[in-house]
Amino acid sequence: MNRKPKIVILGAGYGGIMTASRLQKSGAYQDAEITLVNKHNYHYQTTWLHEPAAGTLHHDRTRMRIDSVIDTNKIHFVKESVVEIKKDEKKVILSNGELEYDYLVVGLGSEPETFGIPGVEEHAFSIRSVNSVRLIREHIEYMFASYNNSEEKHDDALTFIVAGAGFTGIEFVGELSERVPELCEEYDIPREKVKIYSVEAAPTALPGFDEELVTYAMNLLESRGVEFLISTPIQEVKADGVILNDGSEIKSRTIVWTTGVRGNSILDKSGFETMRGRIKVEKDLRAPGHDDIFVIGDCALIINEEINRPYPPTAQIAIQQAYTCANNLKALLAGKEKLEEFKPAIKGTVASLGGKEAIGLVGDKKLFGASASAMKKVIDNKYLYQLGGMPLVLKKGKFNIF
Amino acid sequence: MNRKPKIVILGAGYGGIMTASRLQKSGAYQDAEITLVNKHNYHYQTTWLHEPAAGTLHHDRTRMRIDSVIDTNKIHFVKESVVEIKKDEKKVILSNGELEYDYLVVGLGSEPETFGIPGVEEHAFSIRSVNSVRLIREHIEYMFASYNNSEEKHDDALTFIVAGAGFTGIEFVGELSERVPELCEEYDIPREKVKIYSVEAAPTALPGFDEELVTYAMNLLESRGVEFLISTPIQEVKADGVILNDGSEIKSRTIVWTTGVRGNSILDKSGFETMRGRIKVEKDLRAPGHDDIFVIGDCALIINEEINRPYPPTAQIAIQQAYTCANNLKALLAGKEKLEEFKPAIKGTVASLGGKEAIGLVGDKKLFGASASAMKKVIDNKYLYQLGGMPLVLKKGKFNIF
Repeated sequence: MNRKPKIVILGAGYGGIMTASRLQKSGAYQDAEITLVNKHNYHYQTTWLHEPAAGTLHHDRTRMRIDSVIDTNKIHFVKESVVEIKKDEKKVILSNGELEYDYLVVGLGSEPETFGIPGVEEHAFSIRSVNSVRLIREHIEYMFASYNNSEEKHDDALTFIVAGAGFTGIEFVGELSERVPELCEEYDIPREKVKIYSVEAAPTALPGFDEELVTYAMNLLESRGVEFLISTPIQEVKADGVILNDGSEIKSRTIVWTTGVRGNSILDKSGFETMRGRIKVEKDLRAPGHDDIFVIGDCALIINEEINRPYPPTAQIAIQQAYTCANNLKALLAGKEKLEEFKPAIKGTVASLGGKEAIGLVGDKKLFGASASAMKKVIDNKYLYQLGGMPLVLKKGKFNIF
Repeated sequence: MNRKPKIVILGAGYGGIMTASRLQKSGAYQDAEITLVNKHNYHYQTTWLHEPAAGTLHHDRTRMRIDSVIDTNKIHFVKESVVEIKKDEKKVILSNGELEYDYLVVGLGSEPETFGIPGVEEHAFSIRSVNSVRLIREHIEYMFASYNNSEEKHDDALTFIVAGAGFTGIEFVGELSERVPELCEEYDIPREKVKIYSVEAAPTALPGFDEELVTYAMNLLESRGVEFLISTPIQEVKADGVILNDGSEIKSRTIVWTTGVRGNSILDKSGFETMRGRIKVEKDLRAPGHDDIFVIGDCALIINEEINRPYPPTAQIAIQQAYTCANNLKALLAGKEKLEEFKPAIKGTVASLGGKEAIGLVGDKKLFGASASAMKKVIDNKYLYQLGGMPLVLKKGKFNIF
């Protein structure tokens, strides 16, 4: 009797868990021994993390136990950190132990892009995991709690700098600006003491996004007291603030770094050729020269041929890649040689701005305010439906739509 | 027309606010210009502060706006910090301005007693105000939030040292031990990682209290994972832990100092003769040699003649003193020379231990568990009734009695 081929999926982010889910639903586990490896025993919604970071949503609403969406009798689950991929030996080194594979799916996600700016790693927070955003929320609350507790008032405790006005930065600023009045009430602090800076090196917030929508977002956030510093690169992050490129300094005890992501450093360490930590994959999502390795999500680089630039790494693309990846794995298990090509179908982009506010682009249609906010929740719920059906939507979905 | 005499009440703690309340209710404001001075625009229940410190009760439940219990058309309210009492000039220096008085009531409360142990002021938290306990709660939550966020686990973040096993220390440990399982759940931390130490220099917890009740309390708290270090003086507090008198060290990022209180340092600064910051008052509660100054609450030292030792400063005594003080002020306004003597009537002592647990002594009767816990809530509600009648009980009272 031949042994079943081994499929190992690294990471249970959008790409990894959806691949596992597709393989489970299609019955592929009958033809292969499938193992999902993840650092935590839960999957979380990276695109929601700005909310628990600001404290406007409980972090448990953004995560779900892996064994609540994956049948671990069909797909093995191993809770371990990945240390290295030994691609020549077809095995993966974990923090405790190792796993052999016949086919590997790399969905290890991203790391914050620091651009080598000094002090970012030491002094800035990042919105990247349940653990990291829980800490941001607690840190913010601690700043508010500490303010009135000392005779001498330290205004830098109430100054919050968000570096990067891309999607994550703007969404976080949106939530934070909604939360600040509550925090002021809770900790007896006058609203005008609190400063929120959105600092962006590019000449606009949300670079590349529709101008009218960007203007709407900036006006809205400014009306909530956010100060934008546009075309303002940060030169250095220190324990007590940031230094801007003109040499001036903003004192702050809270710097949240949201200037984009790069691929997981495990890829470089494992000897793959990468661009900003990402592997430029073939059309069938395999790593060049490695027919047994699929790369999806934030670790995969794919080019938008219309503009000859990479697609930004998004949940939407990761989820779509998971469908293609699962189909291609099934094809390989069935002995087929012709694999499916991945074609992203960008359905729309919506950025929440806190409360009932958002902006979005669905096809050519611009959405503002409540309708954009409702659309964002519909998108979030759709993902839950794809992953876990109606039960998961009911358990973790967002229903205060209007 | 003669001008009305001026009564100034310093501090809106138990003693000060109750004196103001009694003077208002008795109509004394018609014969005198009465001013209440307090740092905050709210009064808080010092004896409840261990609960918001541990996070088991919201701090707003422990406080009330001063103008919600005092009619500020009858009693003037000034929100200012007191800097110094110029007793020879019969005036009080505030952080902005000054006030003249004919009669002064000093109810300025206490400060933590550090016994001169190095590092306490710099590195330890204290349970003394809404601001201070809000910070303790946030600090504790921050410790839990930070633990899983670093690859290297720092167990000292989950070690909590409560210095002093008197009433406040034991009540805080009781609440904290009730809260820890919730925090472990919230931050994905195994319960056994968390250590709570109750460190006491005296040869027993709750020194002076009934032995059987002390044993009950210690057994209960130990069953919740509290470790007692009795007969263990602390030699030094450092940023990263405490050094015990045998030279050994416990690493911890959270040291809460509850080894008793001394009077407000403003008294020493103002040239009063004090013992541990407290003024040994006459039987009519006036400061020796100062017929125009009443001293009540934690600033007043009175001797229990049965055992020839000072009464411990408690809310119960402060409230009773307020009644005597208000009566004596009315007598002085009426031109009487014979003042009332203060006699404390100790009705009972109850210490809460978290959840539905408590211990208490009411007369000779010992109370344990739920009955003691119910009694504690009855006592708390009785105070609210004395201060603000049934409306205040309904607004801020504790009703989950059984």
